[in-house]
Amino acid sequence: MDITQLSNQVHQTLNALRYGENPAELYEPIRYIMSLGGKRIRPLLVLLAAKMYNEDVENALLPAAGVEVFHNFTLMHDDIMDKAPLRRGQQTVHEKWNANTAILSGDVMLVRAYELFLGVAPDKLGKVLTLFSKTAAEVCEGQQLDMNFELREQVSKEEYIQMITLKTAVLLGFALELGAILQGAPDTDAESLKLFGDNVGIAFQLRDDLLDVYGDKDKFGKQVGGDILSDKKTYLMLTALEQANPEQLQIIIGWRDKTDLGIAEDKVRAITAVYDQLNIRQQTEQQIDLYFQQALQYLDAVQVPDERKATIRSLALQLMERDS
Amino acid sequence: MDITQLSNQVHQTLNALRYGENPAELYEPIRYIMSLGGKRIRPLLVLLAAKMYNEDVENALLPAAGVEVFHNFTLMHDDIMDKAPLRRGQQTVHEKWNANTAILSGDVMLVRAYELFLGVAPDKLGKVLTLFSKTAAEVCEGQQLDMNFELREQVSKEEYIQMITLKTAVLLGFALELGAILQGAPDTDAESLKLFGDNVGIAFQLRDDLLDVYGDKDKFGKQVGGDILSDKKTYLMLTALEQANPEQLQIIIGWRDKTDLGIAEDKVRAITAVYDQLNIRQQTEQQIDLYFQQALQYLDAVQVPDERKATIRSLALQLMERDS
Repeated sequence: MDITQLSNQVHQTLNALRYGENPAELYEPIRYIMSLGGKRIRPLLVLLAAKMYNEDVENALLPAAGVEVFHNFTLMHDDIMDKAPLRRGQQTVHEKWNANTAILSGDVMLVRAYELFLGVAPDKLGKVLTLFSKTAAEVCEGQQLDMNFELREQVSKEEYIQMITLKTAVLLGFALELGAILQGAPDTDAESLKLFGDNVGIAFQLRDDLLDVYGDKDKFGKQVGGDILSDKKTYLMLTALEQANPEQLQIIIGWRDKTDLGIAEDKVRAITAVYDQLNIRQQTEQQIDLYFQQALQYLDAVQVPDERKATIRSLALQLMERDS
Repeated sequence: MDITQLSNQVHQTLNALRYGENPAELYEPIRYIMSLGGKRIRPLLVLLAAKMYNEDVENALLPAAGVEVFHNFTLMHDDIMDKAPLRRGQQTVHEKWNANTAILSGDVMLVRAYELFLGVAPDKLGKVLTLFSKTAAEVCEGQQLDMNFELREQVSKEEYIQMITLKTAVLLGFALELGAILQGAPDTDAESLKLFGDNVGIAFQLRDDLLDVYGDKDKFGKQVGGDILSDKKTYLMLTALEQANPEQLQIIIGWRDKTDLGIAEDKVRAITAVYDQLNIRQQTEQQIDLYFQQALQYLDAVQVPDERKATIRSLALQLMERDS
């Protein structure tokens, strides 16, 4: 299996989508956000899972696109809620147009996402849409928890894992499950693939938290310490808050609400020093490894020959930037 | 057929719906807006159409509820966009909570609406969801046109009819079409019922515009002239703008942007006087009658005995507050 070839199929399918024309104010923002690009990892996962069971993945192309359109719908609405000015270095929809446009274009995007599933074979359509709807509601629940946590003083690591599971991981899991179901894979395989995806998703999100602090700035493409500067309750911060002694706690709390760029370097250095004292990096890496190993166990449980899992496995390793 | 009995079934079905529990911030607003009541006319239309083909409408209850949940989702999001403080005399969701909550609860409501269709028989599910999705996108298009028109200087009567068709009428048409399809009605009947519903919807919306100016205040339950006071581009206003002579145009334009309650009576009286000079009331009544007669012709085309159409016909008359 060639990832590049599948990835091209994803891009071709997405580029060929037509969302609607009139009124232009409704549909132009959809074309805009879909044109901002991204790795298109979710539709790729659909096709990779589909390809494990059938070389011909034609029937999975539009549902795969549906997952990507849904994902971008959540980005459009999340950006309003988070008041985010930029998305992939470009103006967000509510900034380029306005919040009303972003609300309504997002709504119609969710409808279009559903429509992309409607070509699924009648005997599978109900099942696919039941799982998609469950996942879609979970993603909303995750976003709500994320917003709740911002306002809460105390959040446990377990609650945080629950939040990122809903907000991010379950859609990756669904993408893989979908690909399997579309090709008539056994239920047990579809479920194992879903759990593989969920766990990769959690590991991937934790890695994202880690890289914000300990990542190579050039490679990561974001300002190092952005989460620290904005007081984000990441896995690293929540672990530190749980384990900090009174002095360390005072340092963390002392820097809170100081988000001025002028003090950015000092703040990031001070918080990182506390992280270092508490071995937060190692603890997080250990946790990532745990979820990743769990993921691989679920992949092992899938009842197809190993060579048919090779591409998915290597993509997961690639996502985690690991060699094995 | 007993409307009261069907109406009770609608209410029981809606009351028994469970949207979700956690996080409470996500699901409480759904229960709240659904508890505000309303005539539940859309699910009733689903059941009435279904009953034309089969006395047992059990299979139509959840899809009927789906139409009502969808309708309330559009209200929740429209209220944000329109900055409406009240809905049925109670605080709107974005007022009682905040805009983010109303966005996200609305999103999950749209997902729940889709879920309510998923019990439809597999051989009909694809068709039902294709029509529902088309309708849902059209309702969004109608809301976008409505917002566009507020900012535009010139709107033609034809454009206005197009807007209310999308924003309001097509969902009534879909409700009837859905009921017919669920019971295996012939395609031609389902289509005739849809067109009946679309036309009743347009007539009903025009009647709403008319009653704002010429309605019995006590009976209508709204402040007479509210649309005039807020410079709303109703069918009456657009007709007047098309037909006004220079003096009349000056009167209309002179009152524009004067929305202070203190001058309400004078403004409503002045604009109504222009309407009277131009016979706007009669013209609008004529237009309403045109759409209503068109609707009845579509109902006539439905291939079931007249006695099976009697309840739907009398409900339509009732909606229009007419005797025949």
